[in-house]
Amino acid sequence: MTKKEFRTLADPETIRESIDDLDLGGGTDHIDLRDARGRVLAERVDAAIDVPGFDRAAMDGYAVRASDTVGADEVDPAVLDLAGTVHAGEKPEVTVEAGTCVEISTGAVMPPGGDAVVIVERTTEIDADDSKDTNIECRTAVAPGENVMVAGADIAAGSRALGPGTRLTPREIGLLSALGVDAVPVRSRPRVGIVSTGDELVPPGEALDSDRGEIYDVNTTTIAAGVEAAGGDPVAYPHVGDDFDAMEHTLRQAADECDLVLSSGSTSASAVDVIYRVIEDRGELLLHGAAVKPGKPMLVGRLDQPDSVDTTDADTASSRSAYIGLPGYPVSAMTIFRVFVAPAIRAAAGRSEPATATVEGRMAAQQRHDEGRLRLLSVGIVADGDGETLVYPVDKGSGATTSLAEADGVVAIEADTDYLDAGDPVTVRLFSPDVEPPALLGIGEADPAFTELLDSLDAPRYLPLGSREGLRRLRNGVPDIAVVAGPTDEPDDAVALGEWSREWGLAVPAGNPDDVTGVADLVDRDLRFVNRETTSGLRTSLSNRVAALADERGVDRHDLVDAIDGFERTVKGVESPARRVADGRFDVGLGLRETADRLDLGFVSVGTQSVTIYAAVDRSEKSGVDQIRSALETVSDCCESLSGYTFDST
Amino acid sequence: MTKKEFRTLADPETIRESIDDLDLGGGTDHIDLRDARGRVLAERVDAAIDVPGFDRAAMDGYAVRASDTVGADEVDPAVLDLAGTVHAGEKPEVTVEAGTCVEISTGAVMPPGGDAVVIVERTTEIDADDSKDTNIECRTAVAPGENVMVAGADIAAGSRALGPGTRLTPREIGLLSALGVDAVPVRSRPRVGIVSTGDELVPPGEALDSDRGEIYDVNTTTIAAGVEAAGGDPVAYPHVGDDFDAMEHTLRQAADECDLVLSSGSTSASAVDVIYRVIEDRGELLLHGAAVKPGKPMLVGRLDQPDSVDTTDADTASSRSAYIGLPGYPVSAMTIFRVFVAPAIRAAAGRSEPATATVEGRMAAQQRHDEGRLRLLSVGIVADGDGETLVYPVDKGSGATTSLAEADGVVAIEADTDYLDAGDPVTVRLFSPDVEPPALLGIGEADPAFTELLDSLDAPRYLPLGSREGLRRLRNGVPDIAVVAGPTDEPDDAVALGEWSREWGLAVPAGNPDDVTGVADLVDRDLRFVNRETTSGLRTSLSNRVAALADERGVDRHDLVDAIDGFERTVKGVESPARRVADGRFDVGLGLRETADRLDLGFVSVGTQSVTIYAAVDRSEKSGVDQIRSALETVSDCCESLSGYTFDST
Repeated sequence: MTKKEFRTLADPETIRESIDDLDLGGGTDHIDLRDARGRVLAERVDAAIDVPGFDRAAMDGYAVRASDTVGADEVDPAVLDLAGTVHAGEKPEVTVEAGTCVEISTGAVMPPGGDAVVIVERTTEIDADDSKDTNIECRTAVAPGENVMVAGADIAAGSRALGPGTRLTPREIGLLSALGVDAVPVRSRPRVGIVSTGDELVPPGEALDSDRGEIYDVNTTTIAAGVEAAGGDPVAYPHVGDDFDAMEHTLRQAADECDLVLSSGSTSASAVDVIYRVIEDRGELLLHGAAVKPGKPMLVGRLDQPDSVDTTDADTASSRSAYIGLPGYPVSAMTIFRVFVAPAIRAAAGRSEPATATVEGRMAAQQRHDEGRLRLLSVGIVADGDGETLVYPVDKGSGATTSLAEADGVVAIEADTDYLDAGDPVTVRLFSPDVEPPALLGIGEADPAFTELLDSLDAPRYLPLGSREGLRRLRNGVPDIAVVAGPTDEPDDAVALGEWSREWGLAVPAGNPDDVTGVADLVDRDLRFVNRETTSGLRTSLSNRVAALADERGVDRHDLVDAIDGFERTVKGVESPARRVADGRFDVGLGLRETADRLDLGFVSVGTQSVTIYAAVDRSEKSGVDQIRSALETVSDCCESLSGYTFDST
Repeated sequence: MTKKEFRTLADPETIRESIDDLDLGGGTDHIDLRDARGRVLAERVDAAIDVPGFDRAAMDGYAVRASDTVGADEVDPAVLDLAGTVHAGEKPEVTVEAGTCVEISTGAVMPPGGDAVVIVERTTEIDADDSKDTNIECRTAVAPGENVMVAGADIAAGSRALGPGTRLTPREIGLLSALGVDAVPVRSRPRVGIVSTGDELVPPGEALDSDRGEIYDVNTTTIAAGVEAAGGDPVAYPHVGDDFDAMEHTLRQAADECDLVLSSGSTSASAVDVIYRVIEDRGELLLHGAAVKPGKPMLVGRLDQPDSVDTTDADTASSRSAYIGLPGYPVSAMTIFRVFVAPAIRAAAGRSEPATATVEGRMAAQQRHDEGRLRLLSVGIVADGDGETLVYPVDKGSGATTSLAEADGVVAIEADTDYLDAGDPVTVRLFSPDVEPPALLGIGEADPAFTELLDSLDAPRYLPLGSREGLRRLRNGVPDIAVVAGPTDEPDDAVALGEWSREWGLAVPAGNPDDVTGVADLVDRDLRFVNRETTSGLRTSLSNRVAALADERGVDRHDLVDAIDGFERTVKGVESPARRVADGRFDVGLGLRETADRLDLGFVSVGTQSVTIYAAVDRSEKSGVDQIRSALETVSDCCESLSGYTFDST
């Protein structure tokens, strides 16, 4: 096979063209109408029958010959012999002769001879002169066709009902039902195989061996859900390690069974090399490396299906499946999927991009860009005080899976753009059309009472980045609220919505085996301590306590800090230090009484600190902020149920 | 049981309240994460594990003790002994002692003793002095933690991952995968039973006996699709006739198996009575009759489940299913479903209304309203020349199933509103959130060549209401284009996009057994004729021909018209007269050579008429109109393939 050289990274246009060149299936399925919602008609459907299929009474009343009612009115009704009755769903057994009428229900077949219906409200039933038959007085004249829907008046046989490419929603399904259609030709959903690669991956639900560096496989389920949202039919394969034979086997099986195979690469360079070799040996590489961040290791090509005879023969292209290799990090994989792969799947499925898949907004802050390649920036969105969409970067490093829940979509920054300025308009491609932006964005301290409160809100987003970060971002105009714990200055342009206090101190093993009595023990004794990050309000309170101890002792606070084994050893979550004490890795951890009690640890109380919710003044009318206000009404109950918590009712 | 009186029709607020009072289920399902897309979390999910679960190398390079690299730079690198290697997915078998380093891959576990990674690009491998071991030159200093993601830095165990009520899109599924979650607690989808009633109904796909007045059951599939779109789990029951025992049996079975039972009534008054009696006898009627048009026969109540002991005991309410009776006509049923039922299903499923479910627009024309009750007006929408949404009524009579494909949603006109003026802003509730408004709206003549052309457009809507109606509505500013056949004046403010001609005349049985030679035979001989409607261009050409004949004979044209048996006998579709000749009901039908040839009928040519596509001047920039222009480039091929058609290239 010809060895292709990929000296330069492909630009976005080249990537799109090479993906457009792939064949992603696109046949026709004939499916039951009951399963057709959301599918796309492959062919035009014409009406094969007239609807209704018969001249149909449109009202309850009497079928008549219109000519028998000429001149009839309240004063001088037409009197007709009642010749019989026709109900809906019955074949008329009677004819409307001159001078007669037939009782008829809405929806029933007009009896022969009848050409109009007099509605029941304009008639009176009377005994006939010979008192054996019944006569009907019609107190109105009707024109031929009045109150009758003639056959085909709703839909005429042979007329165009629905065109190819029509998305089938309930109303189209209704129209097809009316035509008697119970099976419809729809565009096939492209079958998309998903193969995650990496020795370290473990399927969710199985046990994880962290000592071996195992992590859960995120991409298989995420990409499968994305394929489904784009109109494809996802087929998840077991993940494979970085081994040529295993990878070749799985990729070829997927190629055999699918129209498109997506792999997401392990992060190690060696695994990328293995995939590269499999595609080169068992298919055709169209593109290797993309001038896109993230996405540099992207691959586009074709994979031979196992029964294809000669991989070098262009004619066998139809026995190849399409292949796209995605980056390994979940957010990177989803970004490349969203921007390059989902449009191709939608096109193959005959679906247009939903209007909800993109949102217009403006940048919350300047974003520099000097990459020389297309940047696909993960962003979150939030409504500002005027209901306009504010866009902020979620740039936690491509390896962070938390970005998955914090980012709503992607902003493309072209290679030749130096920077986006605050206020610049941008288009956000949401990760999927069903992404719902948050009704409230909060940033600040992780706090168990606030976490409870969040549960009663609709679609909140809360980033527990610490009190200091919450205040910083509130000043920069990004979040709606900041949650602040410990001693801080009151922020400008913000209004306090509520406040409570919590007891903090040192989490120790159950029974306090080391007899820890306070912060001084960390300084004076040989205890392995684990701290929180500097942005945390807990950390601020601890630092203040150490400073106070230094004052008491008349020494420099840095000497005390240096004497603590682990003051700079920081972990992220509010429970993390306590959990590291619980699993025996450390002797003492900074934390809350609430956490220590819940994890059945010992606790040495050091003090209490306030927790305050601040809302940006210009967001205080947002419905999400209103929801916080309502939720605060129950926070005192919540505080009562959490040990060490006190609600401040003033 | 207490007999309730329903003297007055319930107002919309009362309807909403009584539906809110119903219990539509609302439990929790535990489902596989792979099936969870679109579902709604029932409970908060906290992280049970740290992600990553270990200190993880964030780059390829060498794990070191940061203190060993102090002061290292390009000029004076730190030289460390290479002590071993750790790959991703491996447990480290080596420790980083002072003065040593360990080769490490991205994603691998940091070996004990190492606290930072020097990236491979800033290192050089050299032979050690004794030439047996390998040394690594590190040309940069690193701080503790540099290029290392500590355990829990992405997600800390115990932190809140996702809140209750979160809709699961691909990104949330990714986050849950990262946490190892493979089964999630989601809100149950309310089970909704659907029972269509009416002796005349036949399921789509089965044979229809039009002589008995049978019609296809539209509501079962339509409402099922609507239930699904709202987040419910539809259960379709076989339709039942207007018989008490059958209706009772099916409704009680549905009540036993479902949280909510929806019936859609047959149109006859007797069937409504039967349902009413079943609910009264076997449940509880909360509301009967709604001051809403359409929707007057609406019912709200509860149905006993078969094992419930005492229907009068309030405590047994939990063994009752909710019940709502919808109108029988499909558009009416869908309207009431959309406005009153879908919100209740969404609430029970924990889903909020998607933003796409409503559209803001303005009325295209005045709409009078003097009903004294809430009017739910079926409307279509179209983008005007400025991209604003124009709203026009689709008021074909509630029995017309074609409205299903022509209407996009519902505008509510309050009881106390006298009229909506042209230009008034209105909110359109789309029939379902997946309704896609048309990219092009056309009105006019049914024409086979134009119908072919439509197939190449994305999401067009074409209403074949006839040339005259097309011109009239074009003047009124509703459609983008009008298609006009036969002799007409050129419209103002419109531009002709394309034109062709078609041969018209008289369709007769194959072989022309009556030897019909032209229009004069209709006048002079005893032939049963069937005509098109007055809005049709074909009809106009025929009328002109009759007038010319009258001139030739020096008689009044009305005398000729009166002499034709069936000049006023009109049918709707372009093929309908020919089809009525084909099935033997009539001797001669007005139509096109194209239709007659395709249906293998005889044809007597009378003339040719032009077909012209006019676009409204202020819409000529719309993308749908552009698509028409492109499609017209191939219309000459299309005309060549249709008998009797000539493309006019000038």
